[in-house]
Amino acid sequence: MHLSARGHEVSGIDNFSRRAKVKEIGSHSATPIRSMEERIKAYYDTYGFEIKFYEGDLMQNHFVDLVIERELPDCIVHLGEISSAPYSMIDLEHCNDTQMNNIISTNNILFAMKKHTPNCHILKLATMGEYSTPNVDIPEGFFEVEYRGRKDYLPFPRQGGSWYHLSKIHDTFNIMFACKIWNLKSTDVHQGVVHGVVTDDMVNDDLLTRFDFDEVWGTALNWFCAQAVIGHKLTPYGRGGQTRGYIALRDSIQCMTIAAENPPDEGEYRTFNQFDECYSVNELAEHVVKVASEFDIKAEIWNIPNPRMEAEEHYYNPDHDGLYKLGFKPTNSLDDELRITIPILMKHRHRIKAKEHHIMPTVQWRK
Amino acid sequence: MHLSARGHEVSGIDNFSRRAKVKEIGSHSATPIRSMEERIKAYYDTYGFEIKFYEGDLMQNHFVDLVIERELPDCIVHLGEISSAPYSMIDLEHCNDTQMNNIISTNNILFAMKKHTPNCHILKLATMGEYSTPNVDIPEGFFEVEYRGRKDYLPFPRQGGSWYHLSKIHDTFNIMFACKIWNLKSTDVHQGVVHGVVTDDMVNDDLLTRFDFDEVWGTALNWFCAQAVIGHKLTPYGRGGQTRGYIALRDSIQCMTIAAENPPDEGEYRTFNQFDECYSVNELAEHVVKVASEFDIKAEIWNIPNPRMEAEEHYYNPDHDGLYKLGFKPTNSLDDELRITIPILMKHRHRIKAKEHHIMPTVQWRK
Repeated sequence: MHLSARGHEVSGIDNFSRRAKVKEIGSHSATPIRSMEERIKAYYDTYGFEIKFYEGDLMQNHFVDLVIERELPDCIVHLGEISSAPYSMIDLEHCNDTQMNNIISTNNILFAMKKHTPNCHILKLATMGEYSTPNVDIPEGFFEVEYRGRKDYLPFPRQGGSWYHLSKIHDTFNIMFACKIWNLKSTDVHQGVVHGVVTDDMVNDDLLTRFDFDEVWGTALNWFCAQAVIGHKLTPYGRGGQTRGYIALRDSIQCMTIAAENPPDEGEYRTFNQFDECYSVNELAEHVVKVASEFDIKAEIWNIPNPRMEAEEHYYNPDHDGLYKLGFKPTNSLDDELRITIPILMKHRHRIKAKEHHIMPTVQWRK
Repeated sequence: MHLSARGHEVSGIDNFSRRAKVKEIGSHSATPIRSMEERIKAYYDTYGFEIKFYEGDLMQNHFVDLVIERELPDCIVHLGEISSAPYSMIDLEHCNDTQMNNIISTNNILFAMKKHTPNCHILKLATMGEYSTPNVDIPEGFFEVEYRGRKDYLPFPRQGGSWYHLSKIHDTFNIMFACKIWNLKSTDVHQGVVHGVVTDDMVNDDLLTRFDFDEVWGTALNWFCAQAVIGHKLTPYGRGGQTRGYIALRDSIQCMTIAAENPPDEGEYRTFNQFDECYSVNELAEHVVKVASEFDIKAEIWNIPNPRMEAEEHYYNPDHDGLYKLGFKPTNSLDDELRITIPILMKHRHRIKAKEHHIMPTVQWRK
């Protein structure tokens, strides 16, 4: 919507696997979302721009090839991956499903780009999680390394924290290679955790996006917001010192737009660490308690055993200069955004049921 | 054969994909190899030990689960991957086929180990190619890195040179993660290029292994040997300064045995760089010319355009101490081994046809 409203000609592809997979684990979006047909119509009725849409699976290389041959895009914003660490950790089938989907879909896009539109820019959603939490600063993708008196400029070491994160690491290496051999242009967006549910483009409820709050598809901040509005305790995992970068949905869209409108050079593989501020999980919970109290909600924090394997206290200092240099200006603070998100969830609170929708964790890293 | 003859109880798994895939590109092994039934019988007749065998595909997780549940191995020597860089570079189908096969088969093994035999040691064939050719020394898997005044011990940066190499990188990260979350034991063998065709265990022709010499399944040294015996010029790619680590087949088997009999600790993910000596491609060709002349073969060198994307002159200094510390003693030098390989190929020279069997490269990295 945002790119279309700025005058870009936009086509979408989706196989609605997210909706199916959220349903699979017995949950749904807290915000009711319309069908794609209804959303495209609502967008047209509101803005007067048409968005083309192809329903299909990126795993089907002939489908991907056909769409890219027909559209000859200048830029492909690739958000079409299975994006949940806990989903990938359910069992072998979910591990393989996540890794196959993410790797094959990206390969299919890369090969179709090379064949039909080699000057196209692929703007791919990766994750800050690819770096894990090393005891050194995290650069944007690459670093100058000195080792035993010699120097090189190398990819910063990756360490995956789930089968999902590993699939993203592999994508990253695949894309890097495609840029090298075929001179493709790529922006690999190592995004932090996105929070919030609306952007300025969503001027009515028909244009709303989804808000997942269950243990598998939600994120810590989403859980806390959902827990607060239904009177559940907020449940940081473990000691709660796990620190990550965060960015509001509206700022994520701003960054995507900046990256799309400022493509890299031919053959350039570029990485942005896309986040605004860093918070520990405990700090997130404290922000939710504070903002919830402004709406007369008294929320309590309850640190529960951590189902994941992750450092609960660690150094964390990732660079994130690239997008700022291109003009990124963060808008809402975490609290500003919580003041928007919490009332929206209060409106839909009847859709959030702690047990039925799996607010508490069951997927165990070590099981 | 080697492990069985040392008193280990050995079971094999294979789906014979290598034979099928070599046939697919129109070639075959220079050495005639028997069917698995015949080989197992020939081994029994010679040594008096039985080797169990399961025909099946590691991509089928129920099959993998069944075999591991039945055998409850102490060690899994996992060589069951698609192992060719050029094969993976043929087109999208071969890229996806290679990445899927290698990743899924390894995941299936890891999950079955965890379920049925968590104390088992997985000894997995990786490749030195995962490191590419950085301008710094290459440690064995991990390195102490200092960055902006802070330190950590991290995986050494990987850079893939083909879709195949990338699949191996992803395996490496997947196995590392499995060791961390499930306390599995793993040896990741970053092996150099294997040369030679026999070991001391192959006391008659019924026990021979394969020798691939085509552009897709062969390696530079195999091409040169095959080219020499049929009077074809030896064809190093490009300027020929590409330097890699090499190891004789018999020493590779020695290393595997050492690693299998000296397993890592519980939860330990261990990497060995498994090679003996480093040579440039031009040096390999020169060695073949020299040894071939001892058999009255006059071979010439013809540097042809490089179909790959790789540095043709570069620094190369990988560590390889781990196996030596456990007792590895290289036996035959490159020339010793060539003096064994070349006469065997002379005996089978009627099976090697330059055009029919694709001795010259056609698969292009940039096509």
